[in-house]
Amino acid sequence: MTRSGAASARKNKTTRAAAMAAAMTLVATPHLRGDEGMWTLDNLPVKLLQDRYGFVPTPQWLDHLRLASVRFNDGGSGSFVSKDGLVLTNHHVALGQLQKMSAEGKDYVKEGFFARSRQEEIACPDLELNVLVSLEDVTAKIAKAVDPEAAQKDQNEQRKAEISRITKASTEQTGLRSDVVELYQGGEYWLYRYKKYTDIRLVMAPEIQAAFYGGDPDNFTYPRYALDFAFFRVYEGEKPLMIDHFLKWSADGAAEGDMVFVSGHPGHTDRLKTAAQLEYERDFGLPLYLEIAKKKRRDYYDYARKGPEQERRSKDRIFGVENAIKAVSGEYEGLLDPALLKALKAAEDSLREAAAGAKADPILKAARSSWDKIAKAQKALGERRLQTAYRRFDATKVAGLANTIVRYAAEAAKPNDKRYEEFRESNLESLRLRLFSPAPIYPDMEEHLLARTLEDALDKLGPKDEFVTAALGGGSPAQVAHRLIAGTKLFDPAERKKLVEGGEKAAAASTDALIVWARGLDYVYRAQRKWYEDEIESVFIAEGNRVAKARFAAYGKTTYPDATFTLRLSYGRVAGYELGTTFVAPFTTFHGLFDRAVGTGEKPPFDLAPRVKAAKSKLALDTKLNFVTTNDIIGGNSGSPVIDRKGEFVGLIFDGNIQSLVGRYAYEDSRNRAVAVHSSAILEAARKIYGMNALALELTGPSQP
Amino acid sequence: MTRSGAASARKNKTTRAAAMAAAMTLVATPHLRGDEGMWTLDNLPVKLLQDRYGFVPTPQWLDHLRLASVRFNDGGSGSFVSKDGLVLTNHHVALGQLQKMSAEGKDYVKEGFFARSRQEEIACPDLELNVLVSLEDVTAKIAKAVDPEAAQKDQNEQRKAEISRITKASTEQTGLRSDVVELYQGGEYWLYRYKKYTDIRLVMAPEIQAAFYGGDPDNFTYPRYALDFAFFRVYEGEKPLMIDHFLKWSADGAAEGDMVFVSGHPGHTDRLKTAAQLEYERDFGLPLYLEIAKKKRRDYYDYARKGPEQERRSKDRIFGVENAIKAVSGEYEGLLDPALLKALKAAEDSLREAAAGAKADPILKAARSSWDKIAKAQKALGERRLQTAYRRFDATKVAGLANTIVRYAAEAAKPNDKRYEEFRESNLESLRLRLFSPAPIYPDMEEHLLARTLEDALDKLGPKDEFVTAALGGGSPAQVAHRLIAGTKLFDPAERKKLVEGGEKAAAASTDALIVWARGLDYVYRAQRKWYEDEIESVFIAEGNRVAKARFAAYGKTTYPDATFTLRLSYGRVAGYELGTTFVAPFTTFHGLFDRAVGTGEKPPFDLAPRVKAAKSKLALDTKLNFVTTNDIIGGNSGSPVIDRKGEFVGLIFDGNIQSLVGRYAYEDSRNRAVAVHSSAILEAARKIYGMNALALELTGPSQP
Repeated sequence: MTRSGAASARKNKTTRAAAMAAAMTLVATPHLRGDEGMWTLDNLPVKLLQDRYGFVPTPQWLDHLRLASVRFNDGGSGSFVSKDGLVLTNHHVALGQLQKMSAEGKDYVKEGFFARSRQEEIACPDLELNVLVSLEDVTAKIAKAVDPEAAQKDQNEQRKAEISRITKASTEQTGLRSDVVELYQGGEYWLYRYKKYTDIRLVMAPEIQAAFYGGDPDNFTYPRYALDFAFFRVYEGEKPLMIDHFLKWSADGAAEGDMVFVSGHPGHTDRLKTAAQLEYERDFGLPLYLEIAKKKRRDYYDYARKGPEQERRSKDRIFGVENAIKAVSGEYEGLLDPALLKALKAAEDSLREAAAGAKADPILKAARSSWDKIAKAQKALGERRLQTAYRRFDATKVAGLANTIVRYAAEAAKPNDKRYEEFRESNLESLRLRLFSPAPIYPDMEEHLLARTLEDALDKLGPKDEFVTAALGGGSPAQVAHRLIAGTKLFDPAERKKLVEGGEKAAAASTDALIVWARGLDYVYRAQRKWYEDEIESVFIAEGNRVAKARFAAYGKTTYPDATFTLRLSYGRVAGYELGTTFVAPFTTFHGLFDRAVGTGEKPPFDLAPRVKAAKSKLALDTKLNFVTTNDIIGGNSGSPVIDRKGEFVGLIFDGNIQSLVGRYAYEDSRNRAVAVHSSAILEAARKIYGMNALALELTGPSQP
Repeated sequence: MTRSGAASARKNKTTRAAAMAAAMTLVATPHLRGDEGMWTLDNLPVKLLQDRYGFVPTPQWLDHLRLASVRFNDGGSGSFVSKDGLVLTNHHVALGQLQKMSAEGKDYVKEGFFARSRQEEIACPDLELNVLVSLEDVTAKIAKAVDPEAAQKDQNEQRKAEISRITKASTEQTGLRSDVVELYQGGEYWLYRYKKYTDIRLVMAPEIQAAFYGGDPDNFTYPRYALDFAFFRVYEGEKPLMIDHFLKWSADGAAEGDMVFVSGHPGHTDRLKTAAQLEYERDFGLPLYLEIAKKKRRDYYDYARKGPEQERRSKDRIFGVENAIKAVSGEYEGLLDPALLKALKAAEDSLREAAAGAKADPILKAARSSWDKIAKAQKALGERRLQTAYRRFDATKVAGLANTIVRYAAEAAKPNDKRYEEFRESNLESLRLRLFSPAPIYPDMEEHLLARTLEDALDKLGPKDEFVTAALGGGSPAQVAHRLIAGTKLFDPAERKKLVEGGEKAAAASTDALIVWARGLDYVYRAQRKWYEDEIESVFIAEGNRVAKARFAAYGKTTYPDATFTLRLSYGRVAGYELGTTFVAPFTTFHGLFDRAVGTGEKPPFDLAPRVKAAKSKLALDTKLNFVTTNDIIGGNSGSPVIDRKGEFVGLIFDGNIQSLVGRYAYEDSRNRAVAVHSSAILEAARKIYGMNALALELTGPSQP
């Protein structure tokens, strides 16, 4: 079933859910808190929207929004905001490209970038944007390809093979990027087709000090005063892409109490995991993640301290790792709250009891032992957690490329449906964009990071670990890293291309030090991955699938799936919140920015970017700068447009407040807030701070002031 | 020992403390956290100041500051800021007088007050200001008057009698207001002599919406944007008081990191109470206080809702009760933290162990059973807590006056040293100022509040309670209140004066309904007070005294006494703080005020006062508005000057942040902050918002810009 609109799918699902709910009154409907939900476009909570807001999007409204929504394939969201292919996202989504486009003496991160004509717009090295053009439910197709009597690891392989056949056929048939998306822990599979754009040019980015004002302390904080936006333009055939579906710029932007939607690509949530899985995350998973992230942070800062150029090169990595540490620390705090796990466990127990007591229903019965099996697999995974975490095959850029090239050669020689997912035909174009990117890689940085990574592996896994043995061959981490980096030509994209295009033979014959090294590691990687897929993933998928089906049987499709970096719609309203004994205002203004700068004595990270400071007397200081909404978002939603009922652009998501971080596991309904840049601030800054009047005019059209 | 300077006292104490510490190494010195302490001027922590800040005030510096510091006798602090007797305090300290000076159609609370020449300065009805001119240690004198073999209640009477003799003699001898102050739970007694001023005129007060911007939600909150200041002038002989000791206005005001002092009159802390007493407060005392405060709040709001004039009349009461509820709720939250009580209990246990194990030391031995005795008295007090709380003899203004007049008549007939403390000769002048105040009292408001109070008493104590029987005589609360208010002439100050001056005979013969009523209640009051003084207070004092002596024996005088609404000096520095994962700036600016107004859509209480709004384009918005310091303050410190090392005025204390409220029981050393109006904001507002240029000139002198 292919759907360019979502309305009829929605209707079908609602009817099915209603029928199921009538049949199954044993178990209560899962409770949605406040404005919870990252909804797929085929299954909006229509009744709830009607009851609470008196507004339900039409199919036309949804189609327009979907086609104006953009996925940044390196991890973020955006939207078309002019008919000439102009795309708006966050500065911090653009940061990776800005870093890659910069060089010594040309620092777009620090100085910003401003194309004052189309001629000055410059191409990004390896940015891929996706627009979702169709969705198709392929759950039945995949179910048919899996033999329910086969062993779980064989079922897993059958499923993967079928997915690979579906995506390959779709790509061949439509020329579109085709992904099969697993939703509801395998309760549904959907084929999502994307129009893919790879000629993307940078139009404008503020200086990082204006975009990321307040730095790490203010990250995930509100009130906030950040100009976290950047503009790109999509080109096709060397010309700006002409499009029908772009968001109209609202004349006034978001106002308090307005109902608003966020359309974007939330990356990952764990709201449907079992209690045992969450307990594992709490006790082992997240602490280990943070341990490694903090090592990375140490490594980046150590490198950055070597000099100003090293500092410049490290900027996006430091941002990324600080951001991750703060976000995951917040998630971890959330999991440490016993009330949260208790509530999730109570919901799980009610479903487990229904499954245990089920007499006739085969779906509920089938799930009886699933929770225990998932817990067992989780335990097995936990026993190898150090190997999984510290065997870092892609810890540095060039080492990751070498490993990928060796793997590519072997995989490409296999039939499509036997390959690892990322080497299937449908994924190769995106992969090659990344593999052959001209973005600079810095040997001294690579050597520094590789040595540190190998040291950590040796330290944590010991000298007898297979990975450590293969990676070090008895040498010291520093020696090995030095030898490898000195002995590789992979910094040159042409070298990488030659190897990949030479196929298995070229990879086997190469004497490049890193390729030789990667060949030696390959069997370790493959063995570990096979163990994971056969012993762990197959159980998570098969038993997760049974739980998902039981949940569907009990509740109908009255909820939304976990986030999967695919397009979702969330709804909510612009609203301040109580905090402590006081009230946090829904909006900040440029006044607030200057208040914070003066109040802190402009001590970094609270110093003003020089252009901002210089523009102070020109700025309308009452202009709304940032604001908060109750929408349910998470990392990956960065750069998502906030739109009003009219479908107009009123703001730009760039963060969540600290209270929202628990959202990886559950939506907190009193103080969860998404944080956005106000549409007025983007215009005001473009005009008064950056003198980008043509850009402002392109946004508003000639009719708006 | 009379001291006009504190330096030599300081020296003596330090030596004594050092000697004691050397003798007693069993028990650790009590730990001072951060910038903890409300220090008496005779006992500054000299070594700590030297070590931490490299600055110790000289005797001249201290004398000057003391003589420039002013106590507002209705509960607050202030300072002289010009040679012409100009006094600066908080708007909320001035609020009571502003309310009393207003009338229907003349609302200084809402509209502010601005004397643009000395002729326009108007007299306050009943404001008394005090300046501390000398301090004398009378501990030994009082000890000598108390027979250690007598029963505790007799000792209590002996002590009170001696205090009354000391104060009477001092008043007669010096003409100064003379108070004996109990410090360290009776470990020391000091005679404080004050110059008293009663011709106080109002010079300037902003509108309450500017002074109390953000209202109750932002009270005890930071960041903050309040112009909480007001000016009075002291007159003597119809002329402005000419003084030598006033604070010089700092040219730049407080800067980040500056060492600052706060000189003022913290009202009450309970840091030396026993753990049993604090547990009582936590379990009964504070909840009961809040219960009654919330009833008051309900009563005030019900009255205020009757019309705009009623709302005007209620403004200061509503402010007061909301302020109290928020402050005490914060204290209560503090006590609910088990870690706090645990830490206090650990310190207490270490002293108790030393006392229990003491072999030779008579002082330590004497305290052995004191903690248990205090706990027992506390328990006995708890058993009558409802009577103590709900027998409200002064619940309304006029009812309180009636009861006081009846008591006055009886007490004045006794010898001075047999009277209740408040009727001793040394206190009569202040009392009469209050009793005969021309401030308006509103009969309908009195009737409303009296009826409610009597209802609550009936409800909580039952019809058979002695107070209820005497107060209602079988009538309903509404009937009785109506009859009493209709039948009294006490709204007229002349009537009150006639009665007081008529002595016992006039009070006994009066047929004024309220006086008759108060005569009927008098025996209930006296019986309850006698029980409290004999059974409870005498134990708290005598046993508290033993504990205090044991503490002195163990630690020396290395700490400060609980707050007693007497002059104290606290030290600290201007500093922001970490909160959650971010950083709270040390300063706000006028920008922040406008940010909050726009960000909240100016919804009350975040609306701007019209004069402030109108002045926006004239204001230097970068001017610092409010700021925070680490100083240890509490209610009563409101209006205290913040001064720098040079002794110059750099800010005006008006609040503490929410994290400081636990300060009633302990100083929280990471986020406790005192909140102040910046000296620059006072000047900027006086000039640009209120056009008070002559006032600004009087502050700065002609030399400053």
